Amino acid sequence: MDTATQTKPVADQTILDHLFRPMGVDGVYARTQAYEDVVDALQRLISRHRPDDAEAFRFPPVMSLRQLEKQGYLNSFPQLLGCICALHGGEADVNAAVERARQGADWTAETTSADLVLSPAACYPIYPIASERGAVPEEGLTFDVAADCFRHEPSKDLDRLQSFRMREFVRIGAPAQIAIFREAWMQRAQAIAESLQLPYHFDRASDPFFGRVGQLMAANQIEQALKFELLIPVRAEGGPTACMSFNYHREHFGKTWGLFDEAGELSHSGCVAFGIDRLTIALFATHGLHVDEWPRGVLEVLRLQ
Amino acid sequence: MDTATQTKPVADQTILDHLFRPMGVDGVYARTQAYEDVVDALQRLISRHRPDDAEAFRFPPVMSLRQLEKQGYLNSFPQLLGCICALHGGEADVNAAVERARQGADWTAETTSADLVLSPAACYPIYPIASERGAVPEEGLTFDVAADCFRHEPSKDLDRLQSFRMREFVRIGAPAQIAIFREAWMQRAQAIAESLQLPYHFDRASDPFFGRVGQLMAANQIEQALKFELLIPVRAEGGPTACMSFNYHREHFGKTWGLFDEAGELSHSGCVAFGIDRLTIALFATHGLHVDEWPRGVLEVLRLQ
Repeated sequence: MDTATQTKPVADQTILDHLFRPMGVDGVYARTQAYEDVVDALQRLISRHRPDDAEAFRFPPVMSLRQLEKQGYLNSFPQLLGCICALHGGEADVNAAVERARQGADWTAETTSADLVLSPAACYPIYPIASERGAVPEEGLTFDVAADCFRHEPSKDLDRLQSFRMREFVRIGAPAQIAIFREAWMQRAQAIAESLQLPYHFDRASDPFFGRVGQLMAANQIEQALKFELLIPVRAEGGPTACMSFNYHREHFGKTWGLFDEAGELSHSGCVAFGIDRLTIALFATHGLHVDEWPRGVLEVLRLQ
Repeated sequence: MDTATQTKPVADQTILDHLFRPMGVDGVYARTQAYEDVVDALQRLISRHRPDDAEAFRFPPVMSLRQLEKQGYLNSFPQLLGCICALHGGEADVNAAVERARQGADWTAETTSADLVLSPAACYPIYPIASERGAVPEEGLTFDVAADCFRHEPSKDLDRLQSFRMREFVRIGAPAQIAIFREAWMQRAQAIAESLQLPYHFDRASDPFFGRVGQLMAANQIEQALKFELLIPVRAEGGPTACMSFNYHREHFGKTWGLFDEAGELSHSGCVAFGIDRLTIALFATHGLHVDEWPRGVLEVLRLQ
């Protein structure tokens, strides 16, 4: 479909007001039942497309700081990371911090790392788990993972939440296996978007690498076609929003976590990621605020009627 | 049932190994499909018991630091709070922190508050939302809320996760309405535990208030019978585990958030909280590792067959 001709009849703020309740911080919202019903329906739709051989894991919203550091996240996206800090030390130390808070001072300066971060993507915890199984089998490995993710970029934009849900299918194996997986998923994603009557297009993309050095990393990622995105117009103004991504990590995670096949070759990896909240918002932005008025075909695909 | 006579045929570590995969930090686990299937079934069971007039909200795992401070959490449980901190400042500052990390130094000391915390309980964000609606109606308010919660208490114990899921029904209204709600839910919870063939008992309880002053607050809470817990034997050794709680907050949240009825009387509140992960672990600890071998009646109640 030609996304440029789409009209957006509902204002962004109206969508936000309808689906969410503010929680006092930009990009962090309480979610209504009407919204969650579509989230659940979408998750079930994606489950029906799950590869037969996929093993599922669900991760909590937090993960090990050390594991994330080890895979180099800090070098690429330090500005987005949410670290978890806590008051350590004895009763006197903690009481002193609380007393400081009572006087209106910034007691959070007293906190120190709890060895945890908020997961910035759903697939990061799967690679160390995969690495504990010994050699990657000839047919490769496939996982179905999901997590509540966090990126520290407060915004009032409809399509930029600080806390959001990500679902991924992850493939670990030989380069050709990853390529076939990614290509098949770009086809399948197109079929899913069409069945949901969402206007979309694909584009090469880059991750939000930090700073001037990051600009070079991003350019390199685009040149090598390591990331594609499926974009859907969500906001009334500005460009369309990346709602799914199709990623080839090359040997990045294999090297970090020691993932080798039985012949000793370094394994590659790739993933398809579904931005569950963005897809849900895209459905409301495209089809309107009231689910019972959505096109019959969309409701059938989502099994919402 | 007499919990003392229960046998625990499966060792705690065997249960952990079967349901979870380690993620490199104590009390933080990847959850298997077998485990998540029971979590989902339990959530649906609780939904079938949802009060008819309840309005549902689902919260992200993070909430406003200011809102949590305002309701006095820091005075009571400062040791449990997970603050979210991030690298702020310009490119040079962030790069300097990343460089420090590269040299093995603690770069997290450079982070500052992102104005967010990990929610320590599912109901905290609902009171400010309720307060924006004007006067509490005569019939009171009832909410169905859920969140991934966090408490900073790293442990290898089967029943003490740092990141866990909590579901709550919350009641706001006159003191008598809260009392009736809590009493009814203690009856209903008993029926649910019995239908799941879980051995249990009730006890007066206190929250984990911090320090010496906290001991007085805890004693006061027990004396006033503000908190009851439904406890189930989960671990092979040690006492039973609180899997549900029945709480009367008196005017605490009403006062904090300005919740009044139409006559100007301060509203009270109470909640019933379901420890979704603890209840799920209790089911596996009681009925064994393999769901298809659980008592037929339990599977029927959970609609797992």
